[in-house]
Amino acid sequence: MFEAAEIGRTEARATYEGRLPGLRVDLLNAQFDLQEAKFPVVVLVAGDDDLGCNAMVNVLHEWMDARFLQTHVFGHPSDEERERPRFWRYWRALPRSGEMALHVRAWPGAAIADRARRKIRKADFESRIDHIIRFEDTLAREGALLIKFWLHLPKKELQKRLARTKKDPEQNWRVSATDGAVFENWDRVMPLAERLLSRTSTGTAPWHVVESTNARHRNLEVGETILRLLRQRYAGSSDASPTRQRAAAPVEFERAPDGVLARTDLTTSLSGERYDKELAKRQRQIRKLSLRARKKGVSSLLVFEGWDAAGKGGAIRRITTALDASDYRVIPIAAPTEEERAHHYLWRFWRHLPRAGRMLIFDRSWYGRVLVERVEGFASPEAWQRGYAEIRDFEQQLTERGTPVLKFWLHIDPHTQLERFKARETTPYKKYKITEDDYRNRDRWDEYTFAIEEMIARTSTESAPWHVVAANDKKHARIEVLKAVCRALDRAVD
Amino acid sequence: MFEAAEIGRTEARATYEGRLPGLRVDLLNAQFDLQEAKFPVVVLVAGDDDLGCNAMVNVLHEWMDARFLQTHVFGHPSDEERERPRFWRYWRALPRSGEMALHVRAWPGAAIADRARRKIRKADFESRIDHIIRFEDTLAREGALLIKFWLHLPKKELQKRLARTKKDPEQNWRVSATDGAVFENWDRVMPLAERLLSRTSTGTAPWHVVESTNARHRNLEVGETILRLLRQRYAGSSDASPTRQRAAAPVEFERAPDGVLARTDLTTSLSGERYDKELAKRQRQIRKLSLRARKKGVSSLLVFEGWDAAGKGGAIRRITTALDASDYRVIPIAAPTEEERAHHYLWRFWRHLPRAGRMLIFDRSWYGRVLVERVEGFASPEAWQRGYAEIRDFEQQLTERGTPVLKFWLHIDPHTQLERFKARETTPYKKYKITEDDYRNRDRWDEYTFAIEEMIARTSTESAPWHVVAANDKKHARIEVLKAVCRALDRAVD
Repeated sequence: MFEAAEIGRTEARATYEGRLPGLRVDLLNAQFDLQEAKFPVVVLVAGDDDLGCNAMVNVLHEWMDARFLQTHVFGHPSDEERERPRFWRYWRALPRSGEMALHVRAWPGAAIADRARRKIRKADFESRIDHIIRFEDTLAREGALLIKFWLHLPKKELQKRLARTKKDPEQNWRVSATDGAVFENWDRVMPLAERLLSRTSTGTAPWHVVESTNARHRNLEVGETILRLLRQRYAGSSDASPTRQRAAAPVEFERAPDGVLARTDLTTSLSGERYDKELAKRQRQIRKLSLRARKKGVSSLLVFEGWDAAGKGGAIRRITTALDASDYRVIPIAAPTEEERAHHYLWRFWRHLPRAGRMLIFDRSWYGRVLVERVEGFASPEAWQRGYAEIRDFEQQLTERGTPVLKFWLHIDPHTQLERFKARETTPYKKYKITEDDYRNRDRWDEYTFAIEEMIARTSTESAPWHVVAANDKKHARIEVLKAVCRALDRAVD
Repeated sequence: MFEAAEIGRTEARATYEGRLPGLRVDLLNAQFDLQEAKFPVVVLVAGDDDLGCNAMVNVLHEWMDARFLQTHVFGHPSDEERERPRFWRYWRALPRSGEMALHVRAWPGAAIADRARRKIRKADFESRIDHIIRFEDTLAREGALLIKFWLHLPKKELQKRLARTKKDPEQNWRVSATDGAVFENWDRVMPLAERLLSRTSTGTAPWHVVESTNARHRNLEVGETILRLLRQRYAGSSDASPTRQRAAAPVEFERAPDGVLARTDLTTSLSGERYDKELAKRQRQIRKLSLRARKKGVSSLLVFEGWDAAGKGGAIRRITTALDASDYRVIPIAAPTEEERAHHYLWRFWRHLPRAGRMLIFDRSWYGRVLVERVEGFASPEAWQRGYAEIRDFEQQLTERGTPVLKFWLHIDPHTQLERFKARETTPYKKYKITEDDYRNRDRWDEYTFAIEEMIARTSTESAPWHVVAANDKKHARIEVLKAVCRALDRAVD
């Protein structure tokens, strides 16, 4: 892969200076047009030529309008970043639609460095690559334009460059970990880079390997590639519009005659006496577990989904009253803000992920994508279909670092819902007021049932399973939820 | 102050249980109504009774809908927080309009603790209080409802409580720094608390001192106060609407016949040869200084304001091309997003403040409040008039921690502007295209001149002075800017 790039291409100064003025005007204008675009652009600058990456980013800043380039050089993660899943820092640095960001080194650099330094095993490296593929695919398929450059320097050239730079008092401080390490460990680093590049060079986000021996050649190649891909995307050319590339048709979900919802026994109930006893016991238990989780820095994530009036709020309250207010946070999911709409739909969940040792509770969640957005037609079939994989990946990133992810579907039947709606009509609580819409939503019970069953089938994983909770009897449902949370916390803090 | 609260008020269980159900319904409904409100609510829970603060926050979570309470318990700052001005962590935790946040301990707790532990001197403590007053006033005057509780426990009671809690295995881990420290250092802490409370109990944000010996009394008092103040504000009662309390009429700004702009000599210019020499020299210098600033963790903040076509972009580029892309960031200020509009107008600037060692460059800035928003009538006179003090305070928080703040007004005359507009009509760069609006804005030259002079007079401080730069000659202007930046960085890194 890299040998193919080592063809010693150079650009004569005269050619360079001839092409440059036009390219700069075009790049600035393409940047201007981007403001109107409905997609974000991420330019990833990575490579074995670390000094070249810095130089390239400086050149792009000089050529383009720095006011509209957000540049993120990912060095050592901060403590706030270390307490969250690895990709959190990249998610929070993503540009919104109509913006461009330069991400320097970022996720490929981190994976290669960790493996080269033997911080992770070979299998972990492969799994890191899996995450990268899914992360990039997640962004690209929702419309982000990902332009990835790998700046490559032949080994001999790197050696020369290092020697020269070390002598330069303004530059020598830069030659630190990365460059020296690449050179010293060339035989270890380059196969890793090659492996990562070949696996992550996907249709939606291919790599552009650029030889950076000759700076003029490198600069032109990178600048012209950015310009070409922006223009292609503006023109709607399929080459740069990965969202148009449809994967093989998704496997049709076959609804079993007795789906998981139908099989849920809604007649189970609990006496008031047993409820009171169990509630007190489980709340004591959850309280103790939460203290240990806080001390150990173990976060957890609870997701509540369910039919309207299934009792999500009540179930959540039975957990939170046992906890210390500083140890948890409840996030109600309603319509996204303008800023959230301008990002990938998972961005607004990523941004809430807590620091170490906290419990985060979502009242409704990212599952909206495959439930309400699917059924009401707010998301395209292509969008909600890929949602399953995106969601699995998101949750896996949490569970892999020891954060339990618990997902509850509170299940009731239409009759019970109607009774609760009617009861609410006399409630003194304004937030429980029932609207016309609530009644109207009942018409789509079957469609929702189908969507729920597919959701459970496709996103119930070993590490983040769905708990379908019979909730016709609220007392029964609350205790079931508490038990599941206790079990999961118990496993996680041990 | 505290003696007055030590009247041993208790609430009988029967009274408590009689009043509670009604209060809870009312609080939930008030919370519901808040969603429609056009202001944010910050409930500050602080006090010498630290355990009581925790308990109170838990009670509020139980009574109200936790999904709509953002709770922030401010413990040790993270590294990302430590690298920014002290109030950054509070700014980033502020709720937006229609939301309520509980801030626990927060700024008063931090100031008292720092002084009690002799981390800061007496004068610093007073200056911290000054900041608090201005911070709270800044929020309240833009419409935030600030409800501040100080939970007070008489010394004897605190002693009993500590002894009891230490025996409770579920609670004893909480009795750590704060409570023990308050008790051990009662004679030192309480006068500090009293001083802080009396100085920060302002008309816009008064303290509610609540004796917390009896939990039922404390809970009712806090709950009912929150309810009362929310209702007053909904009803538009002046008592809870600090924005309606007008300070004394502001001193009218008297325009000098020869204002700072008129006195600026616009005829100064620089030959091409001298420019090239100076430019190279200053860029080398700024580069070196930025490397030292990066190493030393010294951030800096540059603000560019000026007439349209005065050459802000060009001046900024002459700085940035000398720097490493990872060492600076240029923030162009355009229309705020929905999320930004739902916060105090300074919030959108606070959120960009960089980590240690970076240069942040604003292309237009918070001065829009006292320039375009004033002249075009987007801000009320009351709003832009208090803007001066808010801005001074914001900048002071930066300069006090060693971050130089440089403010440039690039000054040209109307004739030069017109010539540049005409030249732009033939530019190949789309972003320079001139619109009808640009020409129309010229009609208000005099009004803007007046606003600029008042702005400079009121916000040019010893630590963050304005630099009025003659910019009819771009070369002259760029060198002037570079020189000023070099001087400021030089002082800051030494």
